[in-house]
Amino acid sequence: MIRQRIAVIGGVAAGPAAAAHAKRIDPEADVVLFERGSNISYGACELPYYVADQIESAETLVVFRPEAFERDKRVSVRTGHEVTDIRPDRNRLVVREVLSGRSFEERFDKFILATGAVAIRPELDGSEAANLFVVRSLDDGVDLKNYLATHRVRHAVVLGGGYVGLEMAEAMVTREIRATVLEPAAHVLHRYVSADSGRLVETLLQEHGVAVRRERAIGFNVSGSGLITSVATDQGESIGCQLVIAAVGTRPDSTLAARAGLRIRESGAVDVDSRMRTSAPNVWACGDCIEVTRVIDGASVYSPLAQTAFRTARVAAENAARRGRGAVAQFPGTCEASAVKVFGLEVARVGLTLEWAKKAGFDAFDVAVDGWSRVSFYPGAQRLRVELTVERRSGRLLGGTVIGREGAAMRANVLVPLVWRGASVREIRDFDLVYTPPVAPSIDPILVAANRAAEGLKSSH
Amino acid sequence: MIRQRIAVIGGVAAGPAAAAHAKRIDPEADVVLFERGSNISYGACELPYYVADQIESAETLVVFRPEAFERDKRVSVRTGHEVTDIRPDRNRLVVREVLSGRSFEERFDKFILATGAVAIRPELDGSEAANLFVVRSLDDGVDLKNYLATHRVRHAVVLGGGYVGLEMAEAMVTREIRATVLEPAAHVLHRYVSADSGRLVETLLQEHGVAVRRERAIGFNVSGSGLITSVATDQGESIGCQLVIAAVGTRPDSTLAARAGLRIRESGAVDVDSRMRTSAPNVWACGDCIEVTRVIDGASVYSPLAQTAFRTARVAAENAARRGRGAVAQFPGTCEASAVKVFGLEVARVGLTLEWAKKAGFDAFDVAVDGWSRVSFYPGAQRLRVELTVERRSGRLLGGTVIGREGAAMRANVLVPLVWRGASVREIRDFDLVYTPPVAPSIDPILVAANRAAEGLKSSH
Repeated sequence: MIRQRIAVIGGVAAGPAAAAHAKRIDPEADVVLFERGSNISYGACELPYYVADQIESAETLVVFRPEAFERDKRVSVRTGHEVTDIRPDRNRLVVREVLSGRSFEERFDKFILATGAVAIRPELDGSEAANLFVVRSLDDGVDLKNYLATHRVRHAVVLGGGYVGLEMAEAMVTREIRATVLEPAAHVLHRYVSADSGRLVETLLQEHGVAVRRERAIGFNVSGSGLITSVATDQGESIGCQLVIAAVGTRPDSTLAARAGLRIRESGAVDVDSRMRTSAPNVWACGDCIEVTRVIDGASVYSPLAQTAFRTARVAAENAARRGRGAVAQFPGTCEASAVKVFGLEVARVGLTLEWAKKAGFDAFDVAVDGWSRVSFYPGAQRLRVELTVERRSGRLLGGTVIGREGAAMRANVLVPLVWRGASVREIRDFDLVYTPPVAPSIDPILVAANRAAEGLKSSH
Repeated sequence: MIRQRIAVIGGVAAGPAAAAHAKRIDPEADVVLFERGSNISYGACELPYYVADQIESAETLVVFRPEAFERDKRVSVRTGHEVTDIRPDRNRLVVREVLSGRSFEERFDKFILATGAVAIRPELDGSEAANLFVVRSLDDGVDLKNYLATHRVRHAVVLGGGYVGLEMAEAMVTREIRATVLEPAAHVLHRYVSADSGRLVETLLQEHGVAVRRERAIGFNVSGSGLITSVATDQGESIGCQLVIAAVGTRPDSTLAARAGLRIRESGAVDVDSRMRTSAPNVWACGDCIEVTRVIDGASVYSPLAQTAFRTARVAAENAARRGRGAVAQFPGTCEASAVKVFGLEVARVGLTLEWAKKAGFDAFDVAVDGWSRVSFYPGAQRLRVELTVERRSGRLLGGTVIGREGAAMRANVLVPLVWRGASVREIRDFDLVYTPPVAPSIDPILVAANRAAEGLKSSH
């Protein structure tokens, strides 16, 4: 059999995972990983902690340096190489060496796109100012941290109250910089938790000196030296600051895919099926540049989470490399389990909140239970809040949120198999969960919430 | 309808839960709770922390004082009343007022036995010495703590390396008392974890100055003043000490049930069906005096865990009080989820370890994965060990253990729905679990273990 050549494009998370897995599946293959930047295989989720100085060196975030990756995974790595075009029908890609600007073609049999996402920049004049930062790539993090090391920043405005926005607000406070979060939606974390829980988080932020304002940035005032000096908001306010962090989300980077004529979805994501096949033969895609199936309702969602990136990478790699051997790999979907920890508070959600369940067309209700992380009178017990979203007719668990200072995030995991399977809250009541006074009350808040939800079902009959 | 009278016998955990629930189900009923001691409704699992002085006052352990329980739950409480006989065929029970010794009969329609368990005392001469303690009732805890307050104890010997034994060893160390654990089995926690994990716990114990000896106590040397001065072991050793704590397990207290002619099982437990009905009409039993069904294989097991006590109490109460209305309540079984935290290390298990799976007749194997509690390079990340027990042919998850300094116990909960349902480890691999750097790695050790187990299945074909 002729040795196959597999090109993987994009080196942050999904790309390296796909490249390494492809080589495992077909050890004879030539696998080449292209990355336009100088780093591959790094932890982007950890950037806020790096900026906060909890992680000192950017090198710590790098899981594999290119040489190490080549040696360990037996994959060729081409950093500083931007793939500008792929021509799967002609088994070719066009790559530009960033430093020299020189372009050349290379032959490949298979292509795996892992081009990821780009941070959305506000479309406002001044958004290219030197003191406006996004937090997406390792370079973004390094640039921001260098800026903080060389400039006196007393007040930072963070645009966006999602996971990254809150993490960055905390990073600022950790560095003794005052922070203001601008979140035009009804509450912070509105994509993830209920209004009640969102307000709980806002109270905590305020206790730590972070101002949360229900406002949208509509303009930047830029000084003569090219720096933003204040942010103008839709409430007619002007907020003076020495730094702006834009954390208003990401969009799939499908530039290359579009240029190659691949089908692109409305969200801008590369169109793939459950095998991670794009619309072109011999081209797969994975990671933050695609949409995935939400298991709860089969909807296709843009949900750029690290775990999804790694898992879709494996599927893409397996199908690209298998050469007809073994079983076809399928991506089973996601329940969008995710979490954030902010000022010691863990906020984890699985599946849908009530708001999102309604948007998805479910007739649903939710229950909220305020309990304890440990036996209430055991020293150190902390308040713990559990919210469950339940389909009214069937009692099916559609999602849940757990919030608390300890044991919240990992507690939410028990909801994952239930949401995946569409289990009824009635069934959850049967379970005996782990109990010992220092880690949980004898009847866990999760069970209390499931009980209350099941009673809610009864009374609605 | 004539108002029914329900007697609940036993006031620690299952009894109060059953009494309160019976009253909820039939608010017209006269519900009377009998307890021979002076306290009801207290946390027995917290006794080690009370002895360790982490919980200062015994009152803290009392969830409801009798008066409060009567008021809140509208249940009559008779402390200091020992039920010496029940005669369900004659609608009568015989009760002895402990203080006066006076006995009298009372009429009841229904009887719920929640007589609990008694701590096993070693059957050795000297086991009645004033410095040998068990840790079962609130009085046991108070007695032991009083003893420690009034005697100079430099070295305590703990008989038994189960949950309570290890908690008590830690309690001694917390009080600056040297502790030696005698555990004749192959390793500590042998009922709950694998030998590897048991040794990991033993290493930790030793690091904290607790000696663990693979020896059995065969005698006590008692001084003239009636105190044990040393423990003789089956290895011919004599271990000097000023205190002995017997934590060698419990046995169901079925004295009353036996006297009433109810069917008793080999373990000594009161025989009940899944509705918590005993062999006599109008008599139910619940809590630590019964066996329950293990969901993994349907075996009947004696598994005196707090959560099971509460859950069986609800079933017994519902069936005793319902008067033919509503649905029959069934106890669905237990996966024996349980945990211990010792010197900061959480050890949680769900279902069967390999050893116990084999004893239960399964052709099984296990996998162990050593991972991290957080992203490995996130500050504070701790080692985390996951063990899964898997049925060889089907890939079915039979149980699992999670051990670590943080996030271990609550992480084990995700195994509960899987073990309950007999899910395959292949299925677990599909899940996206909660991830954010401060609480979990992007691919949780649970998923890594499931992956490895699934690969183990492949290779055994």
